[in-house]
Amino acid sequence: MPDVFNPWEVKGDIDYDKLIKGFGVELIKDLPDVFNEEVLFRRKFIFAHRGIGRIINAIHYKKPFVMMTGLMPTGKFHIGHMMVAKQMVFYQNLGAKLYIAVADIEAYNARGQSLAESKKNAIEEYILNYIALGLKSENLDLYFQSNRSNHQHKANAYYRLQNVLARHATFNEFKAVYGEITPGKMLAALLQASDMLHPQLKEFEGPIPVIVPVGIDQDPHIRLARDIASKCKEFKFMELCSSYHYFMPGLSGGKMSSSDSTSFIALTDDPDVAAKKIKKYAFSGGRDTVEEHRKHGGNPDIDVSFQYLRYFEDNDKELKKVHDDYKAGKLLSGELKQILIEKMTKFLEDHQKNIEKAKRVVDRYMEVK
Amino acid sequence: MPDVFNPWEVKGDIDYDKLIKGFGVELIKDLPDVFNEEVLFRRKFIFAHRGIGRIINAIHYKKPFVMMTGLMPTGKFHIGHMMVAKQMVFYQNLGAKLYIAVADIEAYNARGQSLAESKKNAIEEYILNYIALGLKSENLDLYFQSNRSNHQHKANAYYRLQNVLARHATFNEFKAVYGEITPGKMLAALLQASDMLHPQLKEFEGPIPVIVPVGIDQDPHIRLARDIASKCKEFKFMELCSSYHYFMPGLSGGKMSSSDSTSFIALTDDPDVAAKKIKKYAFSGGRDTVEEHRKHGGNPDIDVSFQYLRYFEDNDKELKKVHDDYKAGKLLSGELKQILIEKMTKFLEDHQKNIEKAKRVVDRYMEVK
Repeated sequence: MPDVFNPWEVKGDIDYDKLIKGFGVELIKDLPDVFNEEVLFRRKFIFAHRGIGRIINAIHYKKPFVMMTGLMPTGKFHIGHMMVAKQMVFYQNLGAKLYIAVADIEAYNARGQSLAESKKNAIEEYILNYIALGLKSENLDLYFQSNRSNHQHKANAYYRLQNVLARHATFNEFKAVYGEITPGKMLAALLQASDMLHPQLKEFEGPIPVIVPVGIDQDPHIRLARDIASKCKEFKFMELCSSYHYFMPGLSGGKMSSSDSTSFIALTDDPDVAAKKIKKYAFSGGRDTVEEHRKHGGNPDIDVSFQYLRYFEDNDKELKKVHDDYKAGKLLSGELKQILIEKMTKFLEDHQKNIEKAKRVVDRYMEVK
Repeated sequence: MPDVFNPWEVKGDIDYDKLIKGFGVELIKDLPDVFNEEVLFRRKFIFAHRGIGRIINAIHYKKPFVMMTGLMPTGKFHIGHMMVAKQMVFYQNLGAKLYIAVADIEAYNARGQSLAESKKNAIEEYILNYIALGLKSENLDLYFQSNRSNHQHKANAYYRLQNVLARHATFNEFKAVYGEITPGKMLAALLQASDMLHPQLKEFEGPIPVIVPVGIDQDPHIRLARDIASKCKEFKFMELCSSYHYFMPGLSGGKMSSSDSTSFIALTDDPDVAAKKIKKYAFSGGRDTVEEHRKHGGNPDIDVSFQYLRYFEDNDKELKKVHDDYKAGKLLSGELKQILIEKMTKFLEDHQKNIEKAKRVVDRYMEVK
């Protein structure tokens, strides 16, 4: 299988050469074994980085480090969201302190969603799913942008940083990253920069390696935060580290979109519904007729069901067999879909039981209830 | 003496007709006696308002109300700053809860002054002088924009409001008020709007009449805060009240400027230094020769020493005698200056003793030390 596997879902928007040569993003090459236990790294879903060496070192020498990420509390939690959720659990298990921001200010300022609605959606859709996927309440700072902390020093420090960073930014920088910008979006952008940088304030961890895992299209946000941080002398920051992953494709091959339920499988979808979606919408890399398929084989590289299997089938040998059988024409598209449906059914059934358990402990995960 | 006395120090910038007819600012007419005990009201230094009736009612019916103001922690505290300081003491004595913001974020973002420097300057120059002028530590919420509160709910609520208000503002509004705008200035402007509005949040006083006393040139800031507040449905606000005062003229007649020590008398100036400044720089409304002065009289309306006396001489009869004698030519410019110098010397001597006392209690005035 090719290293850089499945680029079409970010096609058009991203100039990889520019990112990699112009902006100092590097392809991920050798990683310690502990990383490769995670499918996302082993199969290069996470394919590029800035400064991940500092994180590797911290893990190796058992030094403290932070993994920082955020969630937009709109729409349903779907399999595409698992990309970051699995990294949360991965890094937390390796000793990271996790910072998770619920971007309710961004939802309010950029999408007009009330803070109350964001709170409800964040808990019911995102946080319950994170817990069900293995997030632990220890070594975790999960917060709402609108309500940072039960500790006054932390609350003040987080918003102070947002305000102070503003001095070191220009409108043109925001426009370059966000396109059309409004005051509301600008505040959200600066709060996002504070989200990424504030773990290093003395009121939190102090200077510390921080990794922010994002989709490759999010690199401009990382760059903006790094640039502003480097200009701010009021506080000292270590440079942000980041990793870049591909998006999971939507069922029919385009982008997975929260606003189009035929493009994704939600983690709360009934397994039967998920099965129907796969049968009906999943883009196939098979041939037009069974005869041709048997003769020429299918194309797993563009087959969405196979892409999903790369994610849900942990066993490399099993996956390779499916891949090779499909390519050789031994496996038909419908059969490939059925393999995915079985995997997905098992996953959803187990996961949905875990969600019920998560409901009983979710309070423990949030400092500010 | 004319009602609208001394407009030249804001000349050019302000279109009074537009303010009063176009934007709903009203001239102050009848005020309850309790207001007229204060020279600033009696002599119409404070000459216009929006919605001051709500404050008058609150005072009359002994209902709670808030007086909100801020200070820019740069430069020396001079007699021009007393205009707002005296109103603090006045309203506090009438039962107001006072909110005083140290605009250290604005000083950082708009003037490049470090937060540490702002803290030092705010305490040594402004807060000590406020205390010496009669500010009490009860019924007072004195805070730094960068460090809102020792109560986490209050800290979160104050900055949350800044972020939420942003959605309801446009760049054009900011440009209209502030001219050239940068991200740093915009954040400071939104924090200023939160300064004015946050006393009405449930974490503070809840909806309550709030008066913000400002120089007349500051009305666009009030308007901006009122406009944004009216568009924000996430929180409910009573309309802001405001009062408008003239500036005290600089010694030589123009604007009093913190960056030009020959334009002001600082409250920490040695009385001898103050006397010399008055003799050397105070613009005179006298005639060119003693002979002409005796014959035609001086013009107290443009004489800066007389303007200052209007402020420092509380006794109306005494003031009227000086006014009439000067106008009649009985009093020479040098003699008028000498009257001011005596008043000023007494004031500064007493005040500077009060500053020494204030140093012993200043800690009590700030929640966040």
